[in-house]
This record gives sequence, structure tokens and C-alpha cells, in this order.
Amino acid sequence: MSLNTFGHLFRVTTWGESHGPALGATVDGCPPGIAVDEAFLQQWLDKRRPGQNKNMTQRNEPDAVRILSGVFEGQTTGTPIQLMIENTDQRSKDYGDIANTFRPGHADITYHQKYGLRDYRGGGRSSARETAARVAAGGIARAALNTLVPGIEIKGYMTRMGAMEIDRSRFDWGAIDTNDFWIPDAAAAPEWEAYLQKLRKDHNSVGAIIEVVTRGAPAGLGAPIYGKLDTDLAAAMMSINAVKGVEIGEGMSAAMLLGTQNADEIFMGPDGPEYSSNHAGGILGGISTGQDIVVRFAVKPTSSILTPRQSIRMDGSAVEVVTKGRHDPCVGIRAVPVGEAMMACVILDHLMLHRGQVGNRPLGKIG
Amino acid sequence: MSLNTFGHLFRVTTWGESHGPALGATVDGCPPGIAVDEAFLQQWLDKRRPGQNKNMTQRNEPDAVRILSGVFEGQTTGTPIQLMIENTDQRSKDYGDIANTFRPGHADITYHQKYGLRDYRGGGRSSARETAARVAAGGIARAALNTLVPGIEIKGYMTRMGAMEIDRSRFDWGAIDTNDFWIPDAAAAPEWEAYLQKLRKDHNSVGAIIEVVTRGAPAGLGAPIYGKLDTDLAAAMMSINAVKGVEIGEGMSAAMLLGTQNADEIFMGPDGPEYSSNHAGGILGGISTGQDIVVRFAVKPTSSILTPRQSIRMDGSAVEVVTKGRHDPCVGIRAVPVGEAMMACVILDHLMLHRGQVGNRPLGKIG
Amino acid sequence: MSLNTFGHLFRVTTWGESHGPALGATVDGCPPGIAVDEAFLQQWLDKRRPGQNKNMTQRNEPDAVRILSGVFEGQTTGTPIQLMIENTDQRSKDYGDIANTFRPGHADITYHQKYGLRDYRGGGRSSARETAARVAAGGIARAALNTLVPGIEIKGYMTRMGAMEIDRSRFDWGAIDTNDFWIPDAAAAPEWEAYLQKLRKDHNSVGAIIEVVTRGAPAGLGAPIYGKLDTDLAAAMMSINAVKGVEIGEGMSAAMLLGTQNADEIFMGPDGPEYSSNHAGGILGGISTGQDIVVRFAVKPTSSILTPRQSIRMDGSAVEVVTKGRHDPCVGIRAVPVGEAMMACVILDHLMLHRGQVGNRPLGKIG
Amino acid sequence: MSLNTFGHLFRVTTWGESHGPALGATVDGCPPGIAVDEAFLQQWLDKRRPGQNKNMTQRNEPDAVRILSGVFEGQTTGTPIQLMIENTDQRSKDYGDIANTFRPGHADITYHQKYGLRDYRGGGRSSARETAARVAAGGIARAALNTLVPGIEIKGYMTRMGAMEIDRSRFDWGAIDTNDFWIPDAAAAPEWEAYLQKLRKDHNSVGAIIEVVTRGAPAGLGAPIYGKLDTDLAAAMMSINAVKGVEIGEGMSAAMLLGTQNADEIFMGPDGPEYSSNHAGGILGGISTGQDIVVRFAVKPTSSILTPRQSIRMDGSAVEVVTKGRHDPCVGIRAVPVGEAMMACVILDHLMLHRGQVGNRPLGKIG
Repeated sequence: MSLNTFGHLFRVTTWGESHGPALGATVDGCPPGIAVDEAFLQQWLDKRRPGQNKNMTQRNEPDAVRILSGVFEGQTTGTPIQLMIENTDQRSKDYGDIANTFRPGHADITYHQKYGLRDYRGGGRSSARETAARVAAGGIARAALNTLVPGIEIKGYMTRMGAMEIDRSRFDWGAIDTNDFWIPDAAAAPEWEAYLQKLRKDHNSVGAIIEVVTRGAPAGLGAPIYGKLDTDLAAAMMSINAVKGVEIGEGMSAAMLLGTQNADEIFMGPDGPEYSSNHAGGILGGISTGQDIVVRFAVKPTSSILTPRQSIRMDGSAVEVVTKGRHDPCVGIRAVPVGEAMMACVILDHLMLHRGQVGNRPLGKIG
Repeated sequence: MSLNTFGHLFRVTTWGESHGPALGATVDGCPPGIAVDEAFLQQWLDKRRPGQNKNMTQRNEPDAVRILSGVFEGQTTGTPIQLMIENTDQRSKDYGDIANTFRPGHADITYHQKYGLRDYRGGGRSSARETAARVAAGGIARAALNTLVPGIEIKGYMTRMGAMEIDRSRFDWGAIDTNDFWIPDAAAAPEWEAYLQKLRKDHNSVGAIIEVVTRGAPAGLGAPIYGKLDTDLAAAMMSINAVKGVEIGEGMSAAMLLGTQNADEIFMGPDGPEYSSNHAGGILGGISTGQDIVVRFAVKPTSSILTPRQSIRMDGSAVEVVTKGRHDPCVGIRAVPVGEAMMACVILDHLMLHRGQVGNRPLGKIG
Repeated sequence: MSLNTFGHLFRVTTWGESHGPALGATVDGCPPGIAVDEAFLQQWLDKRRPGQNKNMTQRNEPDAVRILSGVFEGQTTGTPIQLMIENTDQRSKDYGDIANTFRPGHADITYHQKYGLRDYRGGGRSSARETAARVAAGGIARAALNTLVPGIEIKGYMTRMGAMEIDRSRFDWGAIDTNDFWIPDAAAAPEWEAYLQKLRKDHNSVGAIIEVVTRGAPAGLGAPIYGKLDTDLAAAMMSINAVKGVEIGEGMSAAMLLGTQNADEIFMGPDGPEYSSNHAGGILGGISTGQDIVVRFAVKPTSSILTPRQSIRMDGSAVEVVTKGRHDPCVGIRAVPVGEAMMACVILDHLMLHRGQVGNRPLGKIG
Repeated sequence: MSLNTFGHLFRVTTWGESHGPALGATVDGCPPGIAVDEAFLQQWLDKRRPGQNKNMTQRNEPDAVRILSGVFEGQTTGTPIQLMIENTDQRSKDYGDIANTFRPGHADITYHQKYGLRDYRGGGRSSARETAARVAAGGIARAALNTLVPGIEIKGYMTRMGAMEIDRSRFDWGAIDTNDFWIPDAAAAPEWEAYLQKLRKDHNSVGAIIEVVTRGAPAGLGAPIYGKLDTDLAAAMMSINAVKGVEIGEGMSAAMLLGTQNADEIFMGPDGPEYSSNHAGGILGGISTGQDIVVRFAVKPTSSILTPRQSIRMDGSAVEVVTKGRHDPCVGIRAVPVGEAMMACVILDHLMLHRGQVGNRPLGKIG
């Protein structure tokens, strides 16, 4: 069972609603002796935090994370780590009018149909605010990975936002952290901003594609058949709010390739096997190859828009919905650190699973 | 933990290698009192069985399934159901030359890197033969669903195979079972066949996209946040051999849409809520809406091709690999019944989860 | 995996250390629509709370529980319920001298051996303070059971405390809540108190046996073979601090019985099957019979005593340990509400499991 | 969820009914590279096998185990291991008369109440024949432990059978395997046999206590709070058919001890900590201390006896039941290898969990 829990050995259970007193994550299974503190976690939360620039919602949520357990004198102890983020900027009045209305594209109607009642304030449990807890938990995973796999790097960036698409020939890893869109091409950012601001003024929103890459993970991670590394990554990304598609390596385009095009040929390099290409996205048979692990996911346009849409009330009567409140015109931007957090959790979890089943053998050894 | 197990309450554990004595599935948690026998299961296995026509591998595997436990006098008893398929057509000599070679695009190298040894015969555990066990287990799920949700229908079909793509304007649900490609357009089948036979003669292979649809599932299925219906479907499909991408509803294309385009507007119909469109693929916030549940997945081209490819041996020396044996030029064809089986397992599992947590309340009730 | 989580569908994850900022429980899977508030939970915490009378530790911990999520307008919503208890009376100075010493009978040494470090303050994670979180979670389970199984009753009481033992011929269910020892014989309480106070003055402590009974549970609960009702009850009770033995019904004494003595004969009563006796403790083959469910567990004497005991420091040097601080002379007393809480969680969990697998069929139907 | 699965990382799922075609165990998660074959497993099955001497049932079941997957060229591969035992000596006629009758002390009535139907032949799923599958799986665990923890030893023996009880002062570890009762006192065996044969002739049966000890396990095994080593051992033993009580170390008797008596004092020995005694049974705070791990469990008398007992038929009418067939007068004897198997599975599982969470650090290191 995993209603609100993610992971096998490194287990993250998130809790909390958009407008309750607090939300957070219970992180169970973290290796002991990992150095971590609130400041380390806060940097990732700040990356996801709303209100940072005009391309985001203007809500002002500090999203300050507190560690309530599992860390003693600056180190993890192997016991559960409770991470709590108090909700502070709750303008409940913004949401009063949706108590009896189902917003199109939102989970209002399905939560009601499933549970018979719902915390309607700000979307309650189905709000993307839940992803703040994921980012906090992902910070714990990053700290552990930094210790266990020195040199590992996990980074996400946008590759598409409606009509905007990155130019792979201009890909600049170093540029990702320098612009509001987390795109690997700083020069393109102004055009993306103009595009998004136009949509915002038109009371519209837009979808996006985020790519998350892990560099430096060892070969041998993955637990076939049903805990494959790609299976768990697909689940991790699809569980993020508004995600509608997940790709590994070549992704959906693999359907258009021939066998001669798709095969990543293998050569022996000085430090182990090397590959002519990475159509596989770093995963074969559910197990990592040691190449970059490449995952992409698509986020649908924000459903909360100021353009009127038809819907129904709880009593079945028709209503025209205009979603007020302060919403992101493209939730994909803030999904970047969330995707990174999920990647970090999955990689750490599989590293632990591997140690548990296979033990100390150097990962990826050939011969 | 879910190394080789899939599902929460309806749990399927598959076991077995391509060239061992047998393979199968242990199905735990099936509701009691469900009528099922070997003949019912066999029809789904026959749909997946190799050697049926010239668009498939010419291996001749009868894939006869036996029920070893959990069914008494024609009904499930609530105890574990063991399904066994004996391996009969094992031409081990076809595979002898790969004992020390890593085939490009295959899991040979990663299994070796992870475990330090592998059953190399026919790919061992990483062979797509494992999916026969999934199809058998899916048959149990179908039997249970037919009893618990009368009228439910689960069907898969190909929508793309390399350059071939279905014409949605000619979509014919009834045609799917009438052609070798499971495409919803019987008239197009000859063109698909010519395309595939050309590739086979060229010693090549090709990828595909399969769409699986559930009609008639109730609203309210799904266990947010980490057991969302779409999360579990993504995991289910990504766990199938050779799958590189999974989409729900609009899928990756959601990134190109605006908020005004993507919203499925809601109206009150005579039997409950109705929607103007189904961009969501029948799932909102991880919970089913009662619309068609639409999942797509992409399968990469068969890696086993007769065109030579560069690789290495276990000792690191270079080798040119030509994969002999009898392989499908497009594994996507036989992935159709596998996708259906995974869908059936996920839907039944979530129906059971819902009953467990929420109970007897009519699913999808509004007002 | 269940490092810090208990349960299948009704899942309780506890977190927190004795002297950290807070501890609590994340309760996932609770049915929606259950009326519950902090006051309802507090009554059970107050039953376990230290400092209530002279037979307990004189620490003064209010153990006030807060509901941070999962309850909206007085009802559960089906989303995770976060229960937090802030630690207030932390006299860390009492524990400073154990930072480098392993107290005999405590988990100091094994936590250190396992994790390489530990939060030594008050025993950290291994402190029985963790059971406060269980009692809070058990309150949620009780609320759900009261709704789903009207008339169900769960009650624990002591049956033994060192040389003191209850007289079954004087068993008075109504007396349990009227005395400091939760014994079913109010007249015996003064003798128990004199016995315990004598031990306290002697700088000693004593073990105990607690019996927990559920009345009014339906037949049919239990998930054989490895999720049997008695299996889960054994795990639940054995997981409580200081517990060394668990019995169902006849328990260890079953070894001394003959088959003719042990069989509970069956008769047909007006409302279903009735039994001549209850050696089975209400469970056959791991499934409830509808009789009283009877579990007993033994708690060892408090290891923290003022009588010196030999031990070692972290550097291996010998040390004589006198555990100061304010400790219960018999932790068994406060284990009573903990046992009740675990029983409530297990019964609810199995009720949900049964609904999930078997559905709405009236439980325990014959014919 | 763990209806028919036991374990966290080393997972055993048993399947099969007493009189179906076969029964077995799916073992998932076994470390790769472990040498094991059918002959190694068979020795443990032979220890449990019926019909070996006159103190057992005279059924003649060869219980030959076959390995269907997961072992290649004599070594485990890390993939699921399927172990199958075909049922051969099925005298269904012996059981025909119980199709409509509920035998007292058996699971007939509760399986019927839960599932609405049951495989009544020989008790179906609730038959103790299921334990043959446990013993086979335990053999895999033993093989892995022998490789991973050289010198580890797991042994069970009877300590009580009705009025018979072992004399601890005559305890002889080497005698256990030399007599039909697995008692550590060969000279006492004739008296035990006379006692049991008398009971058999009286158409009666008797209960028993089995003690299982692990010598040579490292300190540091156990996953607090809800996956404690003792918690999992309690669950493992309580899940065995007919078990009514489980004890760790001092067990239920801990209730009669004072704190001064119960504390195991600690000293520094040449190879690490040593203890003055082992009241704890080798486990503190749910984690192993490195001492002997001592578990005891009580088995109730065989419910199938030739002495008539009152019961009801499926239609509720009264009936006098005399259980014919060939039954063990004391199932405790054959429970010895079952308890050993469960112990082996739990110890291996926790060794793997420890490696997964904590890694390579030498277990039990002090200073």
C-alpha cells in the first residue's frame, strides 16, 4: 500500500492540505550519519517558492521548513525525519466561492465523488502546495546521495513551454540556474518571458515539458521487474500534480525509430563500458547503465484561469467558473525543483535497495 | 518493496526465465467467488502468443496456462492463485553465442553489472516472455472486473508503428480484433503489413505506440497522492519490456496547449456529470472521472536485429553482434494484450482499494 | 518495508524522539467522513499520561495532541492525518551522564551498534514516549470503529504485576477504569499499590501482564497466511517497548493442554454460531470467529532503576550505572492504553482489508 | 499488504492448498551468487516430512521440491525463485464428509464466514501442509546466511509437550538431531514417546513449546519501531498454524521479575560487549545484541482427534464430529523445522535491511 507514501527503503510520506495549519513529509529509512540541516533543505524550497518573480504566482509563502525529528547534532540518526512547513499566507476568502463548485480541470469533482467530502480551501490535499513537502524530502535525499555517491549531480530544466522550445544546439548546462525559466539557454529567456506575460494578460495559461538528468549515478541501479528504475521514475513523475506524460530517453519518439537507429552501441572505455549514444536514457532492462539518466515529463496548462469555463455546482446546477486567486500561468516552471526532488528520492532508494539485495560489490563492474 | 510484485491489494508476483522449466504468476488478493478457469485465461494468452502470423516471431510456444491453486470447483477462493506456463520451445542453441557477449539495447550488460551473473539463455529474466505471466494474471483481473463492474470493457490497439499512424477519423472500435496489428481501421492493415515485411527483409525492426482504453469504469478510483490511478498506470506500462514513454489523455502534447484549450468543461447529464472533452484521459487529481480511461505507451524497436552492431564481450573486448534467433520485427504488436492485462490489474486493484478505504458508497455520486 | 510504519490499509507511521521538539503519528488511509477532534483523542492520551498518580513517573508532560491535517470541519477527509505532540518537560540535564554510557536493559548499546550514533537524550527514539503517538493514532482508529462497527468495545487491563495476580473469579469489567492499575477488581488495588510502593522505595521495578479484549468484532476479520489477525496482533504488541511475550487466547498454556480440553465446541445460536469456550481467543486459522478477541502481552521490569548495575562506556571501559531521572516503577500500567491503541488499529485495518478483498457481504454469515 | 507474503527485502509468498495439484513458495529478493540446489533444500523438507516415525502422521508425502526459476548453473541470480512441491498422497475420500461440516478448532468455519466458500479438502489453504513451502523457502534463506554470515547456526527443539518438559540442567545441543522429538536430551526421548503413544491410543492430542535459537548473528539487526527484530519474529512464529503464543528471551515470565533480576549487565570482552545473562533473548530495543537470539512459541493440541466433539453443519444443524484421517498427535514435533525456517528468513531479511539502510559498516562495532 502506498496511498501517501513513496519509495521502498527510502520512504517519503507527505501530509497536509493547502490551507491547513501545516504540511510536511515524514522521511523514513534515511541512512544514518548524513550531515543535513534546515538551511540545506531551505535552498531547494526557495527554488520552488512562489512569488519570486513575475512569471510565478504572486502568493507570498515563505515555505520555511523545520526538522522535528531524526536529526541530532547535525546528523541523521537513522530514525524518521519529520519535516514541517507551516502554512502562513492563507487567503481563504479567495476560495470561499468554490466550496460548492467544481472547477474544470481540477480534482474538486473527483475528490468529492471519491470521498463524499473535501477540504475545498485552495484545493485542499490536491493542491500543488503538497509538492513543497516533496522538495523538502528531496533535500534529504540529496544530502545522502552527496555522501554516498560523491560527484553525483541532479538537475532539471524546461525544454518546452507551449510554442517555446529549447534549441538543443545551444544547450548550456551552466545557464540553467541563471534564468527564471530554468532553461539551458540564457539568451532565450526574454522571449519565453514575453510569451508567458502575453498569455497571463490574456487570462490564459500554458503547459510545459521538464527534463531531469542525473549525472554520475553508478551502473546497476534498478529492481526488475516491477521496481525497475524507469518504472519508479515514471511513477514518481506521474504523481506530480498536472503531469500527463513521462518519457525515458527517446521516450514516445521511440515509436518512430528503426532498430538500426535506436541501438546504443557499446565500446570499452578506460573506466568501463561506453556508449555511442543514449537513446535508452541511461536505463536498460530497468537497470542503470552508468550513462546520464534522462527523464522528461509534460505538465498540462494551469487549470485555474480567469477565462470563464462551464461547470456544475455540487447540486448539479450549471455555473460559469472564473478561477480567481493568484495562480501560476505555467506551473511547469515550479515543477522543475519538484522533478529534481523526485529523481533524487528514486536514485537514493535504488542505491539502498541495491546495497540491501546485492551488497558491497562495486556497482557496474565488468569482467 | 516491489521487486517482482505489482499492485496493492490485488498483487501479482511474476517469476521465471525465458529458458527455465516454467514461468508464471502468483496472484494474491483476488476476491473470492469469481468464476474463472484455464480456458478463460488461455484466450488472452493466445492473443499474445508468438507464431500466429507472419508479422510475429515464428517461435512456436503454446503458452498453455495451468491453475495450480486458489480456484476450487470453478471459483476463486480468496487464496493465492498460482498460474504456471511451462517453457517448451527452448532452442538454447540459438543463444549459446551470447553467453559472453552483451547485446546492444538489451539488459545483458546491466543484469551482469548489477548481479555479477545472469541466465543468458534467451535473455533470462529480462526476456519479454515474462509478459506471458502478466497476461495470465490479467485474465484473473478481467474475470473479477466482469463480475464486479458489469459492462466494463478494456481494449488496446496500436496507433503508430514507425511511419504508419492511424487515422482517428476512421476509428473503428469493432475492427480492432479483426486484423494482425490490432488497429482500429481494418482497411489500413495491408499497408501496415507491407511496411513491416519490408523492414523485416531489411533486417530491421521498428517501434510502436499502443493505446489502452477502459470504458465503463466508475468515477472515484485512485489513491492520491502516491497511489494515483495515473501513477499506477504509468508504473504498470513502464514496467513492460521496451517501453520508453507513457501518456495519460493528452500526454506529452499537453505541453503545447493553452489553459483555454485543455480544460474539459463539465455539464450535468441524466446519469451524472458529463464532459465536453477528455483531455484528462479520464483522470483528475489521480482519481477517475467516469469517462474513458486513456493510456498510451511507446515501445522501442526490437533490439534483436540481424544488422550488425558494435558491442563488447564480458572481458571487454570488442565484438560485432548480429542477433540471430526468431524475433518480432515490432514487439509493439504483442504488447497490446500485455497493456490490456496491466490496465485490468490496475483498475481492479483500485476498485478494491476504494472499497477498503471508502466502503460501499456508490462511486461517483454527486449531490 | 515497515521500519516505522504499522498496518496495511490503515497505516500509522510514528516519528519523533523523547527530547526533540515534538513527536507524532502520520495516519494514512483512514476512512473519510469519520467525526473526530482533538478532545476525543486527548482522552486516550490522558489515560497514558505520566504524573497522574504516585504509581507512575512524576514527569509532568501534558501530551497535548494537535491535528495538523486530514480533518476538515470535524470530519476525516480520507487524506493523511498528522498528529503532533510537542515535547515540553525535557529535563535534558537528567540524561547528560548517559551520553557516553550504555544503560543495561536499554537500547543505548544496540542503537549505537546499528547506527553508529544516537540521540541519547531520554533514550531518543527508543524511549517509551513514542507510545504517546500510538495512543493518538489509536484514537483515530477508535473513532472509525465506533462508526463502522457500532457497539464494538476495546478494553485493556492488567492481570499480573510481579507477585500480584488478578483473581478471575472476581473479574469486574466495570471496575477497570476505577483504579490506578486498570485491574478488573477494585478491592485488590490497595494491595497492588502497597506492593508497588515497596518496590519503588527499594529502588526496584517490576514486570506485568496486560490483557486486551475486543468485544463485538464481527467474524471474518483476518488475512491468512501472513496477515492473519493473530499475526498482526502479535506484531503490534511485540513492537511496544519492553514487551517480551504475546499470547492469543490460551497462549503459552496451550502447550499443556490435550486436544479434548482445547477444542471450543460449536453450537448454533439465534444470531449465528456460538462456542462452548474460547481457548482460541476468538481467532481460528487467523480469522476472527465473532467471539471476544483476547490478547495478552508481558512487559519486562523497567530497566531504569536506582540500584547500581554493571555496564560499559562507549570506549569500552567499565562503569556502574544508576539510572536517575523519574521513571515508572512498572511500565506495564501505562502500557494498558498503548495495547488498546494497537488493538484498535489492527481491528480497523483488518476490517478495511476485508472490505477491500471481499466487499460488502455480511461478515460471519452462515448458511 | 502482506496477505500471503512474508518479509521486507527477502520476501516469501506461499501458495497452494492441501489437496490441489501443488503448493510452493515464490522467493523474491534473494541475494545473487548464492550456491543452492534442490538437494540442499530437500534435507530441510525431509526433516519436516510426515510418515518418518510412529510419532507422526502416517501420511506418506515425499514433499520433493523443485526449483523452477531464479537459480542458474547452481547459483541464485537475484531473480525470483519459484519452489514447487507437488501433492501426491491425496486421499480426498478421507475428507469428503467434512465438506458440509465445520470441525471444532479448525479454520473451516472462519474461512467460510470470511470468503463464502472454501476448498474443504484437507483443510485447503488452512492446512499445515502450507508449512512445507515455508521450509523450502527457509532453505534458501539458510543458504544465503551460510554465505553472508559464516558460522551462523539456527536450531530449534521442543522444550515442552503437555506434561513432558525438558530438564535445562541436562541440555545437550548435540542431542537435538538424534531423537524423534528434537529434544536436547536424548535420554528423555523414550519417556516422551511413551507419553505420546498413550495419548494417541486415547484418541487424543497434545500441545507443545518449541524454542528456536540463532547463534552467531551479528549485533545491529532490527528495524525499529515497527520492523523490530522481535516484532518480525513474533509475527513469523504466530503465523504458523496452531501457534497461540510467542516469547522472546524471558518471555511471559518477565512479568514476574524485578528490575534487579532482569537486567543483563554488560562487560567488555576481547571481541566486544559481553553480557552477564540473556533475559533479553538477544534483542534490546528491537535490535540484536550479538548474543543468542532466543524465540519460543506454543502450539495448541492437534484439533483433529478421534474423540467426538460437538459442532454444526453449514446449514446450522448440530453434528458430532470425529476427525478421521491420519493426523499428528502432536503437531509441535513437525513445527520445529518450520520455526527454524521462519527464523532463517527473518534473520536474512534483517541482514539485508541493515545493509540497505546502514551499508557496509561492521555490525556491532563499539568505540
